[in-house]
Amino acid sequence: MNYQALFNQIKKKKSFLCVGLDSDINKIPTHLLSVTDPVFEFNKAIVDATADYTVAYKPNIAFYECRGAEGWKCLEKTVNYIKVNYPDIFLIADAKRGDIGNTSKMYASAFLQNMPFDSITVAPYMGEDSVTPFLEYESKWVILLALTSNKGAFDFQFFEENSKKMFEKILEKSQDWGTKENMMYVVGATKAEMLSDIRKIVPNHFLLVPGVGAQGGSLSEVAKYGMNQSCGLLVNSSRGIIFADTTEKFASVAQLKAQELQMEMENLLIENSIL
Amino acid sequence: MNYQALFNQIKKKKSFLCVGLDSDINKIPTHLLSVTDPVFEFNKAIVDATADYTVAYKPNIAFYECRGAEGWKCLEKTVNYIKVNYPDIFLIADAKRGDIGNTSKMYASAFLQNMPFDSITVAPYMGEDSVTPFLEYESKWVILLALTSNKGAFDFQFFEENSKKMFEKILEKSQDWGTKENMMYVVGATKAEMLSDIRKIVPNHFLLVPGVGAQGGSLSEVAKYGMNQSCGLLVNSSRGIIFADTTEKFASVAQLKAQELQMEMENLLIENSIL
Repeated sequence: MNYQALFNQIKKKKSFLCVGLDSDINKIPTHLLSVTDPVFEFNKAIVDATADYTVAYKPNIAFYECRGAEGWKCLEKTVNYIKVNYPDIFLIADAKRGDIGNTSKMYASAFLQNMPFDSITVAPYMGEDSVTPFLEYESKWVILLALTSNKGAFDFQFFEENSKKMFEKILEKSQDWGTKENMMYVVGATKAEMLSDIRKIVPNHFLLVPGVGAQGGSLSEVAKYGMNQSCGLLVNSSRGIIFADTTEKFASVAQLKAQELQMEMENLLIENSIL
Repeated sequence: MNYQALFNQIKKKKSFLCVGLDSDINKIPTHLLSVTDPVFEFNKAIVDATADYTVAYKPNIAFYECRGAEGWKCLEKTVNYIKVNYPDIFLIADAKRGDIGNTSKMYASAFLQNMPFDSITVAPYMGEDSVTPFLEYESKWVILLALTSNKGAFDFQFFEENSKKMFEKILEKSQDWGTKENMMYVVGATKAEMLSDIRKIVPNHFLLVPGVGAQGGSLSEVAKYGMNQSCGLLVNSSRGIIFADTTEKFASVAQLKAQELQMEMENLLIENSIL
């Protein structure tokens, strides 16, 4: 999916919501545990209930990988289901991969070739040749970690050389490798006021913003400091939507939570003259 | 496996060799492609041929993950085979994982609980809470990326604050999280002379050194600058051993290559009064 198609979808759905499929088998409604593939049935129900309000889904690969080959099959079924039934939706593999070139190439084929993901989150520490193999697929994206939403973000991401912080260096340097058409950045919502500084370095790129909801960020702050003329934001919510309810009503409650966020997003898009 | 057991194995085998199982299905001998699980048969033959000269095996997870659920089963079979038949061997999941706490916890269970890996390589960028979930397993290890062997290492790892480089900051800070009994560091062999500076920060930790062989590092340089009184080194060779020959003799040629390295290592251990 290219930049314009993603922006078109945002305008059509009046939403820049990404739903994180952190589908922990120990947290899904217990009545699903008797079916053949409980996590797939859970994901399917969540997707069917929320797709009208959502422009992206982001399976968190760890929650599938921890279940071995069975989890991997469930991941494949989930993304194939989404791509077939909702072909306009942007699919993010939240995998945080990155290794030497010949190895990143294998990870890229795992997610961008063998599965219908549109993008993958990539860790920056190993530099250019660990990132560029993911950029070799037409209309597919790297979403590079810049400033994350967790406490540990302060350990290394704010390391500073000549008044430039590590995450700022990453934002700058990585623009030699890709463009706004094939790179996005992860920027945590818990530091929303920092988005205005980040926008000076990457004014036109999309930013994937985790940390709204369970991790504590504010949507209006994110839009205030981070929105650009093409929206330029995908804001993720995982647990706040998918585990909002764990009874048999889980899907309809998830739908309500997604719709609430979509309505808030619609207002923010109107305020910023995008709609 | 604990520190002393690893050191004992090094003395017993007179070797600090780690063999990387980067078992690309497109590079294994073609005569294996007709069997049910070619990569497993390849790994089994390589392991049986080299285990006498090797203290560790390091499957590179990307080469399994790119084959989906089938690749994942092959990985499980491989590590179970090694653990059952060679229980003293140290098993490294070369996975370069790392995410927010609740997600790293899932990755940790994937590799350190559900499979018999002794250790996993972890990316440092997201800081403390992305690393510590991997340290919660008794006698299991984190192998944290510090200075990698690829060209891209120069992009961010040498970023410098107050004369301290990024990788040095990681070596220092991470000592708050674990000890020499449960943490190692990845240090690329292509910068062997830097090992003496690294040893000032982590004198007692084990270092996992990739980049000897195909990536161009020298074993004697690594030992000169990096060996400590408990050896403190695991030196990896992947392609230089497992793909040294691609005919039906591949296993015996791999054995010869591993034995050559073991003999060189034995001399270095003697020179450093460890044997």
